[in-house]
Amino acid sequence: MREIFPVAPYPYTFGRYHEPIARVKPEETVVLYTEDCFEGKVHSEQDLPSKVAGKYLNPQTGPIYVEGAAPGDTLAVHIHDVTVTRDWAVSAQIPFFGGLTATTMTRTLQDPLPEKVWIYRRQEDGRFAYSDRFSIAPHPFMGTIGTAPDIEALSALTPFTHGGNMDVPDVKAGNTVYLPVNVPGAYFSTGDCHVAQGEGEACGVALEISGKVTLSFSLIKNHPIAWPRIESPQEIMTVGSARPMEDAARIAYTELVLWLEGEYGFEKWDAYQLASQAGKLYVGNMVDTYYSLVAKLSKEYLTAR
Amino acid sequence: MREIFPVAPYPYTFGRYHEPIARVKPEETVVLYTEDCFEGKVHSEQDLPSKVAGKYLNPQTGPIYVEGAAPGDTLAVHIHDVTVTRDWAVSAQIPFFGGLTATTMTRTLQDPLPEKVWIYRRQEDGRFAYSDRFSIAPHPFMGTIGTAPDIEALSALTPFTHGGNMDVPDVKAGNTVYLPVNVPGAYFSTGDCHVAQGEGEACGVALEISGKVTLSFSLIKNHPIAWPRIESPQEIMTVGSARPMEDAARIAYTELVLWLEGEYGFEKWDAYQLASQAGKLYVGNMVDTYYSLVAKLSKEYLTAR
Amino acid sequence: MREIFPVAPYPYTFGRYHEPIARVKPEETVVLYTEDCFEGKVHSEQDLPSKVAGKYLNPQTGPIYVEGAAPGDTLAVHIHDVTVTRDWAVSAQIPFFGGLTATTMTRTLQDPLPEKVWIYRRQEDGRFAYSDRFSIAPHPFMGTIGTAPDIEALSALTPFTHGGNMDVPDVKAGNTVYLPVNVPGAYFSTGDCHVAQGEGEACGVALEISGKVTLSFSLIKNHPIAWPRIESPQEIMTVGSARPMEDAARIAYTELVLWLEGEYGFEKWDAYQLASQAGKLYVGNMVDTYYSLVAKLSKEYLTAR
Amino acid sequence: MREIFPVAPYPYTFGRYHEPIARVKPEETVVLYTEDCFEGKVHSEQDLPSKVAGKYLNPQTGPIYVEGAAPGDTLAVHIHDVTVTRDWAVSAQIPFFGGLTATTMTRTLQDPLPEKVWIYRRQEDGRFAYSDRFSIAPHPFMGTIGTAPDIEALSALTPFTHGGNMDVPDVKAGNTVYLPVNVPGAYFSTGDCHVAQGEGEACGVALEISGKVTLSFSLIKNHPIAWPRIESPQEIMTVGSARPMEDAARIAYTELVLWLEGEYGFEKWDAYQLASQAGKLYVGNMVDTYYSLVAKLSKEYLTAR
Repeated sequence: MREIFPVAPYPYTFGRYHEPIARVKPEETVVLYTEDCFEGKVHSEQDLPSKVAGKYLNPQTGPIYVEGAAPGDTLAVHIHDVTVTRDWAVSAQIPFFGGLTATTMTRTLQDPLPEKVWIYRRQEDGRFAYSDRFSIAPHPFMGTIGTAPDIEALSALTPFTHGGNMDVPDVKAGNTVYLPVNVPGAYFSTGDCHVAQGEGEACGVALEISGKVTLSFSLIKNHPIAWPRIESPQEIMTVGSARPMEDAARIAYTELVLWLEGEYGFEKWDAYQLASQAGKLYVGNMVDTYYSLVAKLSKEYLTAR
Repeated sequence: MREIFPVAPYPYTFGRYHEPIARVKPEETVVLYTEDCFEGKVHSEQDLPSKVAGKYLNPQTGPIYVEGAAPGDTLAVHIHDVTVTRDWAVSAQIPFFGGLTATTMTRTLQDPLPEKVWIYRRQEDGRFAYSDRFSIAPHPFMGTIGTAPDIEALSALTPFTHGGNMDVPDVKAGNTVYLPVNVPGAYFSTGDCHVAQGEGEACGVALEISGKVTLSFSLIKNHPIAWPRIESPQEIMTVGSARPMEDAARIAYTELVLWLEGEYGFEKWDAYQLASQAGKLYVGNMVDTYYSLVAKLSKEYLTAR
Repeated sequence: MREIFPVAPYPYTFGRYHEPIARVKPEETVVLYTEDCFEGKVHSEQDLPSKVAGKYLNPQTGPIYVEGAAPGDTLAVHIHDVTVTRDWAVSAQIPFFGGLTATTMTRTLQDPLPEKVWIYRRQEDGRFAYSDRFSIAPHPFMGTIGTAPDIEALSALTPFTHGGNMDVPDVKAGNTVYLPVNVPGAYFSTGDCHVAQGEGEACGVALEISGKVTLSFSLIKNHPIAWPRIESPQEIMTVGSARPMEDAARIAYTELVLWLEGEYGFEKWDAYQLASQAGKLYVGNMVDTYYSLVAKLSKEYLTAR
Repeated sequence: MREIFPVAPYPYTFGRYHEPIARVKPEETVVLYTEDCFEGKVHSEQDLPSKVAGKYLNPQTGPIYVEGAAPGDTLAVHIHDVTVTRDWAVSAQIPFFGGLTATTMTRTLQDPLPEKVWIYRRQEDGRFAYSDRFSIAPHPFMGTIGTAPDIEALSALTPFTHGGNMDVPDVKAGNTVYLPVNVPGAYFSTGDCHVAQGEGEACGVALEISGKVTLSFSLIKNHPIAWPRIESPQEIMTVGSARPMEDAARIAYTELVLWLEGEYGFEKWDAYQLASQAGKLYVGNMVDTYYSLVAKLSKEYLTAR
């Protein structure tokens, strides 16, 4: 199986302006290695990100040129496996970043929260423990996954229509992520592996770790989508990323309704009604430049008709 | 067991200005009957709410004067059972109300969505079916539950610090809801039973139904809480209700962090860290005057220390 | 001229639940005296509001029962004069309140800003000076002005459809404020005089002062309005109060467009177009429970047709 | 005086990825010609933008490489003159774009507003008239003005820390706009001339027109600013661009407070207090990908100390 490693200087944007580091054919299974969000520079509780981390966060592995991908297609990314490649993870409290603090976007005149680092170590039972205080069960996923926007180059800290830094735990092994193709070759990138993260990623930093992800691509030709979609064996999901957060919720549920109408034969108002009574809606992140919300519906409603 | 029925003219607010309809002692188990949000006036797809419903929605059963409750106490409401009292439920699409439409608060110059009613009938398997198109598994809960605010009278359509119209599916049998006591006797009310509802309640109207709820109260004396909390056998939960939605998320997680710090012995930043990695965050409603978000944490993290 | 004084215990809500303190006929001119937001309890820089102020802020002078006012009418409040009744004003920085700090609604885990009081003294030139550091030209207006909501009792800190705590500097002498009548007699109240305030009222506390306001009422029978309107000799204005702030902007401009369409003969899309090219839109407050935005249009556009 | 014309294919982003079309020295006065937002393709009420306009809007004149500009500098753009270069202007109502409609970010299931074009013609008195219905006094300014972000390429429809599509009427002749320099040479661009626009730009399209702007640059070396600032002969101003709108207000006033503290000798809380009592806060746009708010303070407060 072909292995693809990130190439320094790493891209810190999603866009068409970086040269592809690999070309992959549809249906070819490849393994991508990813750096953690700090490029592995934060090793201990003494390594404050403001001192040791670089200027940019979330180095990407990519862009990958997907053969045959053309604007107007949808890129289906089948995630076969997500494995972490080390036995420790790092989280942190970063000044003016996170969900329960003023930030560079939600400005106040208050002092920041203290900068702090947490190091988690893998235990024998596989859980990641922070000293003897608590431990978290692993559920690895990719924090960033996306294609290039059309003409913009968007920071790898931003989730938007192209995917990007959604921080959605359902971007995990066994699931398929659907992304819009905006440029020839799609220019796919991924990174920012999390071995665990709560919904909302409240402090803004998950259990950050290096990883390897095994995936393959399919193309759905001439079938544009407006926002990312995810499919698990049990559910269909849509992701909206926006501010304020209700706009992300509106996008997620509107896309779910239109998906039910467009591909599953529901009349529009019945689709809205069904989503209202059977949909789930959780917060992927409440900390990034846009908030990401995930709407989902069990597939039982798709086959019950 | 004492049964308490709603008394017309029903209260459509949470506040101290209505006379209590009953006095209940702590630990006494009572059964409250509740009208549906339309007072049962919408029976068929021809009964458009704009034609047949009254001026106000969400009639409350209450206020209940809880003996001994004083400002600064917390009222623990133990929900032993929620049973629906009829075999059909109603949902609707109401002009300029709901999550995927302009509303009276999010104004635009567009035309409204069409007004429409859905009638669901209970099937033999217990699910509630809309014609032959889809059916929803029952998971009954109370859409409104709350105490009186201090000096305000807030619409029964509003969720806020006192509880109210949170539309949170975890307000269900087996769980305990904690509410602040702001006035002597607490002035507890509940209503708006839903036999099912998706997260977010996207169209603004769940499977509305009349119900009966069996509950008892406990008082935690001199122990104020700022926002409602919920406890299930497996989880602790906090509810924040605000606009924009990120403010509801901030409230919910801040309250969870402070709860972990105040009552479970966590250092504050560890509590924030734990909530970031193990918390869940879902949308109760994205349609009411304030949006309600629920943060939750598994009790395994409370006992693991 | 009849003088009406505030009556203790003062109302701290807008609602139908307080007994009127006076009955006034349409076209009768009356003088209302108002307490400052702190009931005059903050006199010096040592008087921290958390220590000396009462539990509630913004005591109201009212309710005034306006003879003949009925639900569905509009109450026109003609403000003939606003005069301050003392030679000093007070402002303050209050923990977790204001525009550039986390608040009880926009929660974070940060420490509050320091609590502080500023005392301003009237100089010979009429300006209000804070020590020798800066002085503000007086432009007195009423921070709160409103009628009773239908069934709710809303805090005097809240602006909404009934008016209330809008903190809009155009509520001043020479202007007319139009308010919806929701209950028989309208139950008009006013208070919270500001001798000066910047747009947005960034720290949440203006130059607070006791005042007297001379006004008369007219009734526009059977002519409901959805939100407050203001008319100056030169401009028509609409006020929207909501969160997030864009919802307040949407309300203000939608109401302006509908006003142009409904009463000035504009076709709807032309009205939207005109508001887009000639409207003004400023922030009254960015600190209250809802934010208040004011849209305005010069009357030159009304007569030019 | 050197004249600089836009070069096709025009840039539709602010970023470092386009080759500069000119190099300009500090203090050199140059004239830049700009296309209208539709590249002049909408001439009549029959020219619906969805039919005749290109895929991208807001073509930029630039990037201009400013000699000597380095990251960490501030670029002062002195606007000597803004002149329109034709005698008609165009506005439009575009489906799912604007302030009083659902949009691609604030999604609903409603139908769009009708697509419509307004053509305004210059009258003898200089005003721009829409048929015989109304006319608008000219006050020309540049809708877009900015430098390149560091590594992102941001759409010319986006306002952010680099300036961009702020749609702020104070970007006009006689004023100086201060912009951060993020890349060597600054990569300055401008465009999207408006001969008039209301505050908020409610429908999303101003009186769009081709223009020429006469300007010169100064560099303030090693003096970074976080967000754009504007100086007029009478006022200092800060611009914040964000969603929700209150975040834009917070940025604008925080930047004003920090400016007063950093460069005018005010103690921080006095600066906050002064901004609260004497500041102005208006909405530049309520329609772009971020909303732009302008905080301003009269210079009288700067010299009075």
